[in-house]
Amino acid sequence: MPDSTAPRNASPLYRQLADKLRKTIERGSLKSGDRLPSVRELAQREQVSLATAVNTYRHLENQGLVEARPKSGYFVSPKPPRLAEPEMGRTSTRARAVSINSSIMSVLAAMRDPSIVPLGGACPGPMLYPAAKLRRLLAAQQRSNLDAIGRYVMRMGHPGLRQQIARRYAQVDVLLAPEDIVVTIGAMEALNLALQAVAKPGDTVAIESPAYFGFLQIIENLGLKALEIPTSPREGMSVEALDLATQKPGAVKAVIVMPTLQNPLGAIMPEANRERLVRLMAARGIPIIEDDLYGELVYGKPRPRPLKSWDEDGNVLLCGSFTKILAPGFRVGYISGGKWQEKIEHLKFMHTISTPEILQSAIASFMENGGYDHHLRQLREAFHTQLNTMTETVGRCFPEGTKLTRPEGGFLLWIELPGNLSSRALFEEALKENIYICPGNIFSSSDRFENCLRMNCGYPWSAEIEKAVLTLGHICQRMLKSQSA
Amino acid sequence: MPDSTAPRNASPLYRQLADKLRKTIERGSLKSGDRLPSVRELAQREQVSLATAVNTYRHLENQGLVEARPKSGYFVSPKPPRLAEPEMGRTSTRARAVSINSSIMSVLAAMRDPSIVPLGGACPGPMLYPAAKLRRLLAAQQRSNLDAIGRYVMRMGHPGLRQQIARRYAQVDVLLAPEDIVVTIGAMEALNLALQAVAKPGDTVAIESPAYFGFLQIIENLGLKALEIPTSPREGMSVEALDLATQKPGAVKAVIVMPTLQNPLGAIMPEANRERLVRLMAARGIPIIEDDLYGELVYGKPRPRPLKSWDEDGNVLLCGSFTKILAPGFRVGYISGGKWQEKIEHLKFMHTISTPEILQSAIASFMENGGYDHHLRQLREAFHTQLNTMTETVGRCFPEGTKLTRPEGGFLLWIELPGNLSSRALFEEALKENIYICPGNIFSSSDRFENCLRMNCGYPWSAEIEKAVLTLGHICQRMLKSQSA
Repeated sequence: MPDSTAPRNASPLYRQLADKLRKTIERGSLKSGDRLPSVRELAQREQVSLATAVNTYRHLENQGLVEARPKSGYFVSPKPPRLAEPEMGRTSTRARAVSINSSIMSVLAAMRDPSIVPLGGACPGPMLYPAAKLRRLLAAQQRSNLDAIGRYVMRMGHPGLRQQIARRYAQVDVLLAPEDIVVTIGAMEALNLALQAVAKPGDTVAIESPAYFGFLQIIENLGLKALEIPTSPREGMSVEALDLATQKPGAVKAVIVMPTLQNPLGAIMPEANRERLVRLMAARGIPIIEDDLYGELVYGKPRPRPLKSWDEDGNVLLCGSFTKILAPGFRVGYISGGKWQEKIEHLKFMHTISTPEILQSAIASFMENGGYDHHLRQLREAFHTQLNTMTETVGRCFPEGTKLTRPEGGFLLWIELPGNLSSRALFEEALKENIYICPGNIFSSSDRFENCLRMNCGYPWSAEIEKAVLTLGHICQRMLKSQSA
Repeated sequence: MPDSTAPRNASPLYRQLADKLRKTIERGSLKSGDRLPSVRELAQREQVSLATAVNTYRHLENQGLVEARPKSGYFVSPKPPRLAEPEMGRTSTRARAVSINSSIMSVLAAMRDPSIVPLGGACPGPMLYPAAKLRRLLAAQQRSNLDAIGRYVMRMGHPGLRQQIARRYAQVDVLLAPEDIVVTIGAMEALNLALQAVAKPGDTVAIESPAYFGFLQIIENLGLKALEIPTSPREGMSVEALDLATQKPGAVKAVIVMPTLQNPLGAIMPEANRERLVRLMAARGIPIIEDDLYGELVYGKPRPRPLKSWDEDGNVLLCGSFTKILAPGFRVGYISGGKWQEKIEHLKFMHTISTPEILQSAIASFMENGGYDHHLRQLREAFHTQLNTMTETVGRCFPEGTKLTRPEGGFLLWIELPGNLSSRALFEEALKENIYICPGNIFSSSDRFENCLRMNCGYPWSAEIEKAVLTLGHICQRMLKSQSA
């Protein structure tokens, strides 16, 4: 399947072949338990090498679609119970002050212990990132520019990196000059700057529901109020509900939205909704803070145009980061502040003055020297495989009635537990087994997601993860039973 | 002169010899214009090598104490007009909302052009920092821990660095555990976190007058009010004035103070005042935010104990950074939050989540492997020489009536111009000549320092800097003349 960002590079042959077989299975031509052609037969039939045939089955096996039986060959896996998708909530909350931070921090505290199986945080496995190459680029950059260690620059970002970011966005119709961009300490600082630029204490900000808990933290910390807008696991924030909520002038001072691969739902907002959202907010003079953190992680098709591409008067503040896609340890993000650009520059100076230059130049160099698309393709494929395996495993071991999102990118799943099981109780029980999950209650200032949880599929599948997911399923079954007893 | 932090390493021979000659000149045994012994005579008399004798004269020349006349040898320089020191203001301002940010940013904007002679920003020359060594340590750290690029850690700082910081402070009676420290993006983030932890919008914060403009920016940005306390160029913030200002409970919610080498005055608060300040604020329940940014830069004697060393109940929040002393480009600072430590940790997460780990581990490695004291000694010596030369040059070319601080450390001078000359006007005139200075008006929310400016002595002396200072003196003379005309 050709990749949007590098159309000339097709995906490897084994992936194409695996996709073909997957479709045959999904259409029902091949059923659970059916025997598949042997590796040799497959190679002959499809005119490919034996190695390619082996890789094809391995890939399907990783996805949980086929299974190898010793000395018998490959068979179509038993069909997982097909889990329903969660539905969108119906009503917006009333705007309210947020006081969820201590709850979030108590959950995040558990993340700091590296011995715990990491199913909670949105942190992929470090082995998925090109550390060795980044290390070499960093060293080369420093050799050629030793001064960069001895100075801290007042500029709003490394010129080369700002140029690379601008070029990248030009591919999806976002036209920026390097000077329109401020480099930040990850997306978290970018969001802080954006909110401080457009809202003041007491103002109401519209957010998705469920929303990334970091939004709730910043909103609480800045003394703002949050208005939670119903958000669909498929289409993201409801533009209809936002329309209603913003009819009264001044009721909402800003809206934060993740149109591509929303955290935690994985939703991708359809293009028509995007355009409508941008036009509506422009007409009402309500700034949009667009969090594009996962924009590059859509599987196997062109990434959608960011909201910013419809922005005509600088009403959209675009935030992003290299944290999830290239160099988690560098903490390099960015913001393009639209008509608030000068204010954003002042705020950046007051927050942290500047972002370490050598880290920026290493990223710029990576983007420039051509490995970037290749890396992103590999990363998306790894996430896709991992997410499929997680989906299959959850389907196999969680209680009947569990609902599960079907994101088309990224590495996060959102699970809705049956019987109003408490995910916070599940969190506590799981911790006792050294498993870390992210309970739904921290994704809202209301308690409406108490029975949900977010699952991190960022790590390559392993026996340890498999066991942890089975344990989680077991705990849920036990909690359900004790509920009905 | 033995260095306090490494008592076993004496300063080099040429420095000892230069100090001896300097004292002879200062005592008056050698007068302006007197001929000095030739290099050969000096070497013979003092039983040192010719190279040491040459270095001795070079050093004295750099300090502006002797001058070489072609083919005639060395002579004692003409005595510079001895400039008076500025005096402390008499009254506190009323607490007021700050709205100085746009003024500050317009001044700082000029700093971004590297072709301009950098006499304004508190940014030393990059060549004074051990970039090559840091680069090697960074590379070594990465080779041994590739994962650090691929992950971002939720911990509040690299354990090794927090330990090194704690050890360093133990030498000056500040007893911290590594867990008492949060690593930040420079001191700027540390100050943001500290102020957010202890004050809320509308609260009044006591600051020095003049104060580092960054304090004013953060205060403005957080919607706080500033109360400016008279501050002496010798002894720092007046504890008497602060006592008066804080007698009414609730009138002041926090105090920010730089007890060692205050920016911009270079004042060092006497020990008795330090203790009194800490006890007074503890008794009144007013938290102290101690900015220790320049603490390691006192010339040739033990650095004073930080306020934090008298802190018994966690009432002092200690902030610092490696930006001015080791690795400007890394943007690594820290805070120890006292009784607000947990709140500081939450705030750090909400601001920027974490600080890039590889930069922290390189600094930890530098501190651990013994080059740190040696580097600091060299840095202090360079700053001392540069500051002396600047003092002499300003004394030579600025108008009569100019006043000048005599800091015992750091690399900043504070100049008070005669005749109420406007430093903002000087700033504009200087920019036309490609010279950047820092006008006094951005160090206060009042206009009381309109006739002052801060001079950066962070760069090794050069013909370009010499010329720039002479040009500034000339502009001042011209402005004075046109005033009286």
